[in-house]
Amino acid sequence: MEKLKEIKKSSKKLFDGRLIKVKIDTVKLPNGKESTREVIEHPGAVAVIALTDENEMILVRQFRYPTGEVLLELPAGVPNKGEALEKAARRELEEETGYYAKKVKKILSGYSTPGYSNEIINYFIAEELTLHKQNMDEDEFVEVDIIDLEALLDLAYAGKITDNKTIIGIMMADAYLKGKV
Amino acid sequence: MEKLKEIKKSSKKLFDGRLIKVKIDTVKLPNGKESTREVIEHPGAVAVIALTDENEMILVRQFRYPTGEVLLELPAGVPNKGEALEKAARRELEEETGYYAKKVKKILSGYSTPGYSNEIINYFIAEELTLHKQNMDEDEFVEVDIIDLEALLDLAYAGKITDNKTIIGIMMADAYLKGKV
Repeated sequence: MEKLKEIKKSSKKLFDGRLIKVKIDTVKLPNGKESTREVIEHPGAVAVIALTDENEMILVRQFRYPTGEVLLELPAGVPNKGEALEKAARRELEEETGYYAKKVKKILSGYSTPGYSNEIINYFIAEELTLHKQNMDEDEFVEVDIIDLEALLDLAYAGKITDNKTIIGIMMADAYLKGKV
Repeated sequence: MEKLKEIKKSSKKLFDGRLIKVKIDTVKLPNGKESTREVIEHPGAVAVIALTDENEMILVRQFRYPTGEVLLELPAGVPNKGEALEKAARRELEEETGYYAKKVKKILSGYSTPGYSNEIINYFIAEELTLHKQNMDEDEFVEVDIIDLEALLDLAYAGKITDNKTIIGIMMADAYLKGKV
């Protein structure tokens, strides 16, 4: 670790937004030279691998403005201030899809793009689902899609799933149902 | 698509960095109301799933400043201006690890965090490797680690791999070797 580490020398805040903060830090490299690092600060997220009793996944389709596309994704979102991750996972699933999960369990965490962001996504398996009512944020427009896991695996292997957390969710769901996770 | 789409009304540039650009756009939502979207523009990346003839993967460990941690990752990077993705994949693998890949093939692409960034990661399988010489960028410090794919799968299922593109790389390598990809 030590011989790879970069030390912060100074930090300049560039933007403090609703979701992200942007800063540029000057760092001392392992060879003693200086460089700059562009950094996005993000509060972290939860993503929900919601499985029905028939081995289907509850997914959402939404327009992702930065990409200009509608993507098929795991239900996901950012915890409220002070909200526990597990509670946030249950809430995001219910808000976006209407499904309440009796059983929720964290299985892993992964950085989404560690070269320039500290965002970490916490993945939860959600089971024992019952349908309540969709209750989205005011500026959220989401369609629910329930798809058989085997079909999703085929789509992922064929390169038809284009959101990284959703690719992970599909492959982890398969491993989970096979008792590997 | 149309009923989920958000239309750009105006755009304000906030930062034009070495790697990323940051802007805040005002958009018209599907319900006619306005909202803002914080957007990172990123040129896109390549990530390399490099497999030896003995079913090992060539990975790298590097300090990721935004996370404050050394992460185990697929070799990856950003194409040079005008550089084809396949060429960039081969170059990044060779620069970071010293391995030249005779056979390189794109298998999928995925957005890393589409809620606020347009970054897409293009995944390549690299095979028929021969060891040349590591040749890193001036401000890059990377250690190479060659690990058996079965061991990596166990680490991924146990939540010990904490970089999303690397989790995908490991699981796609397994699917590829089983003829599913």
